[in-house]
Amino acid sequence: MKRIVGSPGTWSGMALRLSQCVFAAASSSAMASAFGSSDYSAYFYLDTALTLQFLWSMGFACVDIFALRNKKDLHTAPELILIFLIGDWVLAVLMFSGACAAASVTIFFRMDVRFCAEYRRLPCAQFELSVALAFIAWLLQAASSFSGFWLLISFF
Amino acid sequence: MKRIVGSPGTWSGMALRLSQCVFAAASSSAMASAFGSSDYSAYFYLDTALTLQFLWSMGFACVDIFALRNKKDLHTAPELILIFLIGDWVLAVLMFSGACAAASVTIFFRMDVRFCAEYRRLPCAQFELSVALAFIAWLLQAASSFSGFWLLISFF
Repeated sequence: MKRIVGSPGTWSGMALRLSQCVFAAASSSAMASAFGSSDYSAYFYLDTALTLQFLWSMGFACVDIFALRNKKDLHTAPELILIFLIGDWVLAVLMFSGACAAASVTIFFRMDVRFCAEYRRLPCAQFELSVALAFIAWLLQAASSFSGFWLLISFF
Repeated sequence: MKRIVGSPGTWSGMALRLSQCVFAAASSSAMASAFGSSDYSAYFYLDTALTLQFLWSMGFACVDIFALRNKKDLHTAPELILIFLIGDWVLAVLMFSGACAAASVTIFFRMDVRFCAEYRRLPCAQFELSVALAFIAWLLQAASSFSGFWLLISFF
């Protein structure tokens, strides 16, 4: 088995997937508990991306746990790695665009029109927390994507 | 010379760089002619990214033209390719985040709070045009980044 940190079927890979789950769930919870967040397209889009991220990472974490328990080698089929890799990259782009879009609207509220100071009911602190956690989840997803890419290259 | 489409010192590479310049300049012009665009952080950020994109692509287009006229091979030094590649990737991420941020604020104006319909002076059409052109410039920059990455891999 090739020993690439963070690749499928390794302890580091499983830890990475579980961290993605935790941060995606935390970010989504912060967003869901913010009053009126679904009225804004950017926050709704980020929430959708976070849900997809959670499901994808949870699925992969289960595959990793299964492979580690049964000592299966997941690195034998380049086609399978390629399919996982495409999914990882699509999700990384989705997460990054969602986090940037939500950050942009939050900065608009906080700095450009100062709605956060004027309208106390607007839960700006929760929006900010959710965006920060989403960026961490994206960084972890990017690490998985690069690790998968490196693994695929090592086949050629 | 390795024949990778879009890599430095090739005709396709030069065409890609010139197209990036054209789209970045067009997007920046659309944004600059939109009244009050610099009041919003997202649009200001996109404009900064577009300016950097224009300067970077213009510089590279000049290098390509010089290499093609003097029949120089730019593919001999992996270290140089690596430095260019890092710059290309940083710029691609910057452009994508800028385009997403600006798109998000524009969607907020158009769909969430309907400012575009209420305040006729808000130049929404120009914001939309600028965002669309910025996404095209980003796609072209991404093509350059992947081409450079492929070239670097071919060294190993």
